[in-house]
Amino acid sequence: MSAHAPAACLYGVGLGPGDPELITIRATKILARVPVVASFAKKGASGRARAIITRWVSGSCRHLALDYPVTTELSFCDTAYVTQLHSFYEHAARLIAAHLLDGQDVAVVCEGDPFFYGSFIHLYVRLRDRFQIEIVPGVTGISGCWSAAKAPIASGDDVLSILPGTLGDAALASHLTTSDAAVIIKIGANLAKIRNAVAHAGRLSQALYVEYGTSEAQIVLPLAGKMDDRAPYFSLILIPGRGRQYE
Amino acid sequence: MSAHAPAACLYGVGLGPGDPELITIRATKILARVPVVASFAKKGASGRARAIITRWVSGSCRHLALDYPVTTELSFCDTAYVTQLHSFYEHAARLIAAHLLDGQDVAVVCEGDPFFYGSFIHLYVRLRDRFQIEIVPGVTGISGCWSAAKAPIASGDDVLSILPGTLGDAALASHLTTSDAAVIIKIGANLAKIRNAVAHAGRLSQALYVEYGTSEAQIVLPLAGKMDDRAPYFSLILIPGRGRQYE
Repeated sequence: MSAHAPAACLYGVGLGPGDPELITIRATKILARVPVVASFAKKGASGRARAIITRWVSGSCRHLALDYPVTTELSFCDTAYVTQLHSFYEHAARLIAAHLLDGQDVAVVCEGDPFFYGSFIHLYVRLRDRFQIEIVPGVTGISGCWSAAKAPIASGDDVLSILPGTLGDAALASHLTTSDAAVIIKIGANLAKIRNAVAHAGRLSQALYVEYGTSEAQIVLPLAGKMDDRAPYFSLILIPGRGRQYE
Repeated sequence: MSAHAPAACLYGVGLGPGDPELITIRATKILARVPVVASFAKKGASGRARAIITRWVSGSCRHLALDYPVTTELSFCDTAYVTQLHSFYEHAARLIAAHLLDGQDVAVVCEGDPFFYGSFIHLYVRLRDRFQIEIVPGVTGISGCWSAAKAPIASGDDVLSILPGTLGDAALASHLTTSDAAVIIKIGANLAKIRNAVAHAGRLSQALYVEYGTSEAQIVLPLAGKMDDRAPYFSLILIPGRGRQYE
């Protein structure tokens, strides 16, 4: 790296909820000019992020695959999970730092929005004191899903809660009782527990289940009509608020 | 309208948080081809939405200005407010329906995301049974603000609550106490009350105040350092969560 080279910049780039056209203009401009793009994916899978960016990156762009050592095979309370994730993020941060120190801008691409439950946050906290970092917000997966489901999520004075499905059932039911509107994320193996909590809070009749929102494989149905307990991790449940009515 | 004319479509189009480059590709494609665009604005103001779309609409596009009869001059509990808003949305829906019945597609453009506390919801509920409607999600104002403020808002098992600043102080403090992360929207004249509620919940040291996020006039400062009680209605307060740490 030349002593006079401009400092390289790290971009956290939101890609939107899945439909490749729901990326922002700003994101496409950054992808077209960076020499290095990095994306998270489950080991052995190429990841949805990579499919979205194909049409935007330059032919000479180098791709760094950041493959999680583990995703849902271990509980996130397990010490082995914490240790493996810690090492993974440390390694990923070093890899990216090496490119930045070499004067190459790096874009870490993120499904949804980088700062909304995104893995990018773990890189950001490791690199923010040493490098210039710009965050490009994206359309969240939850916005994509409530738009696709035609479910206005909140208006007026509605309190809207975003609830990870990993919470205990009592905590889930309590938040559902005190919120006007809710989105439950991270469903996967938690579906049966979540359905019980939604029913316990008296919200089952309003709840919608959405799988692969905005993609061609999209499924939207009432949660009460979802008869089995199989759900991908990135499915979600919407409970729309009532807002102020002028009707 | 010819009996064989294809049915016209209503689009609710999210424009993103303010920076014109934070619009989606899908939104720009729709804006380029619709013959009619409608936008909400305060009476006498052209509105930020209109400034964002200028570069994307066609030269022949007709613009419908949907001017609120009243915004913050009356309390939203006031009967006069409710009556005026009801008439306004009824009139706006009729205006748009006339174009749709005439075979013209209409895009209602919305700052942020149409179904996230958007006025478009009041048109949607009036027109959904009669017309084909497509929702184009957008980057929310809150995503724009936490990105601009470099404040990762939530990760891991964080519960994130979106709280309208119009709530009472006891309700605000209660939600702030039970949430890991929070975004308080609709600040305006509610700032003094909100600051008290945030302090009461013991969150003042983590709270950030953001005004005109992602625009050139952007201001980000600790809420504790915001010494006066003057704030625009669309400013907001961010209280980031802690998430799972792998550090």
